[in-house]
Amino acid sequence: MNGDDLKALVRTIPDYPKPGVMFRDITTLFGDAAGFTECIQQLAAPFREKKVEAVAGIEARGFILGGAVADRLECGFVPIRKKGKLPATSIGQDYELEYGVDVIEVHEDSVREGERVLLVDDLIATGGTAEAAVKLLRTLGAEVVGAAFVIDLPDLNGLKRVETLDVACHTLMEFEGD
Amino acid sequence: MNGDDLKALVRTIPDYPKPGVMFRDITTLFGDAAGFTECIQQLAAPFREKKVEAVAGIEARGFILGGAVADRLECGFVPIRKKGKLPATSIGQDYELEYGVDVIEVHEDSVREGERVLLVDDLIATGGTAEAAVKLLRTLGAEVVGAAFVIDLPDLNGLKRVETLDVACHTLMEFEGD
Repeated sequence: MNGDDLKALVRTIPDYPKPGVMFRDITTLFGDAAGFTECIQQLAAPFREKKVEAVAGIEARGFILGGAVADRLECGFVPIRKKGKLPATSIGQDYELEYGVDVIEVHEDSVREGERVLLVDDLIATGGTAEAAVKLLRTLGAEVVGAAFVIDLPDLNGLKRVETLDVACHTLMEFEGD
Repeated sequence: MNGDDLKALVRTIPDYPKPGVMFRDITTLFGDAAGFTECIQQLAAPFREKKVEAVAGIEARGFILGGAVADRLECGFVPIRKKGKLPATSIGQDYELEYGVDVIEVHEDSVREGERVLLVDDLIATGGTAEAAVKLLRTLGAEVVGAAFVIDLPDLNGLKRVETLDVACHTLMEFEGD
């Protein structure tokens, strides 16, 4: 399966969640056996020799990918969740939305000082959530060895924002015009 | 790693989310490399010869496990989400909470008629969510070949409730007294 085949499995839903937005629905890729397997394989591949000790996935679609990538890399999984979802003592980090701010959180004992962590999410748009996730992990002392996303929306410049933080990014496909 | 070792990785948080509840925090198991690998292996093992065509995972912790189990079984992944989270046409199923009802949803085109689906979640308590998930999948024509959970709280009788629906259940550990 090549990159174009993988990209063809993503469904575009026009005008969702509001008029003018082309929503890239990755669930159709997840539902395809060959596509899902290839996707996980491609996400994990560049990090096989990077001594990754934990994959941090961002709720909720980043959990689907991150759990599988952690399993492939034979490492642990750390959930980064929306506010108020984690049961033990957590730290939070704000990030901007189009209107207002939101918060993501991580358990304060989920990462050890110096632990080598790979960040995984389904999509990078403006990079606001990914930036917040990198800051959270670094606050806990993690060494963020990279970030992997299935979809990049290059018009929104999220990759540049994360790379400015000195995090190497890996993406599988782009959708332009978003 | 044996069953007791795996169980010892689950952290118990007393009085969360309210007084008198012993919350079983599975994130400490997920964060342990050997524990997470073993957990995914054990969840998938009984279904390797069952010709599973898709794993359905329940938001949110069921996504972490379900994605990895789908990858192990080389099949697709179908997300079962909270209300209003899926972008395409979906069907919903109510289930009772302690006070009131909630709804889970699935994309109506996410499962084919006759498709062999394995349900995955982190924990089974009363079985209300799992029952709703089985009903949703069957409404779409799925053949539910089994359900796999890491933790069973046997005092709440959830397994019996799901097995009454003629779904074979597989669990990795029990916590009594909940």
